[in-house]
Amino acid sequence: MSLPAFDARFRREFEALLTWRRDVRHFCDRPVAEAALQRLTSLAALAPSVGFAQPWRFVRVAAPERRAAVIASFERANAAALAAYDDDAAARYARLKLEGLREAPVHLAVCCDAATTTGRGLGRATMPETLEYSAVMAIYAFWLAARAEGIGVGWVSILDPLEVLAALDVPASWKLVAYLCVGYPTDDWATPELLRAGWERRDARAVELIER
Amino acid sequence: MSLPAFDARFRREFEALLTWRRDVRHFCDRPVAEAALQRLTSLAALAPSVGFAQPWRFVRVAAPERRAAVIASFERANAAALAAYDDDAAARYARLKLEGLREAPVHLAVCCDAATTTGRGLGRATMPETLEYSAVMAIYAFWLAARAEGIGVGWVSILDPLEVLAALDVPASWKLVAYLCVGYPTDDWATPELLRAGWERRDARAVELIER
Repeated sequence: MSLPAFDARFRREFEALLTWRRDVRHFCDRPVAEAALQRLTSLAALAPSVGFAQPWRFVRVAAPERRAAVIASFERANAAALAAYDDDAAARYARLKLEGLREAPVHLAVCCDAATTTGRGLGRATMPETLEYSAVMAIYAFWLAARAEGIGVGWVSILDPLEVLAALDVPASWKLVAYLCVGYPTDDWATPELLRAGWERRDARAVELIER
Repeated sequence: MSLPAFDARFRREFEALLTWRRDVRHFCDRPVAEAALQRLTSLAALAPSVGFAQPWRFVRVAAPERRAAVIASFERANAAALAAYDDDAAARYARLKLEGLREAPVHLAVCCDAATTTGRGLGRATMPETLEYSAVMAIYAFWLAARAEGIGVGWVSILDPLEVLAALDVPASWKLVAYLCVGYPTDDWATPELLRAGWERRDARAVELIER
């Protein structure tokens, strides 16, 4: 593949991709083609990884009993989270739709293989968390590439990762990094759902270039 | 900003962006414009974040004594890493160029503000590491947006994060997620430097869609 110029038009559209990517919790029935999932996984695997360790493992969760176990884990964790807010915040929390686990045609668990020898440990002696970070970058690439095909991704973190790993029956050395809902969204939005819902605002510190 | 179609041409170029992004360790003298750094930080801040916490903090490290402290931390960590490999691997490790700290015009530390109340804790009760993961996604967005402007980024993880934080004099609640070298690269490559150098190969498990 030759190196494109990445002209102003491409950069504008890439900015739009970053802007219109959403954490999707509202999915249509429309299935996601097998070829699309494979393609997105391949694009995700172009992510940087510490020492070229490539530690991400993409697990499609199709078995109904496994999906049900994940949904049950979410429901317990979500009830506990709700109980930890005081009255006003709890009422607002309860109105949020935080996941689309039941509607999403595809459930995708992304794990980090902590026992991989690929990369021979390079770069992670003093910051071992960079192994997981590599998987996180693969997830964001998957997410953006999906959006560029009109496919939505929602990251569900309100669950017990050990319960999910047990339900998935993956090697003991794998850590759950993300549980993703994947499917075609019902709507397109340029602003985050938690912003539209009034849960949180943009934080000026997030765009500040601090000088040292 | 209206929603683009993200047509086949855009998707091809986005795939090329993922493919030609590199961890850059070879930089030219050419400075990076202030406006470019600000623009890339703003694009990075479009990343997803748990509970819309936006916890990333971008710190440009310009003071020579701070940069020198980071370089010294790298040198100690790199010597220790070298000493941990056996003879053959050590010889190969010693030949790798793993960072461009001296040449890069811009040093950028990316921290995660673990004490932020933005997002009100939503989504991170059971998986608190998602706060750092949010910063990692902002880093990858910065990296890709930089590449689309011809600017290279190299992530240096071979250093002691506590030494770096001490050198930066940032709030105690901030965790170092990444230390980035930023500047114009001397070359363009479609393949990772550790692959070209024969340190590691592509891992077939990284593109596999595992079924459960």
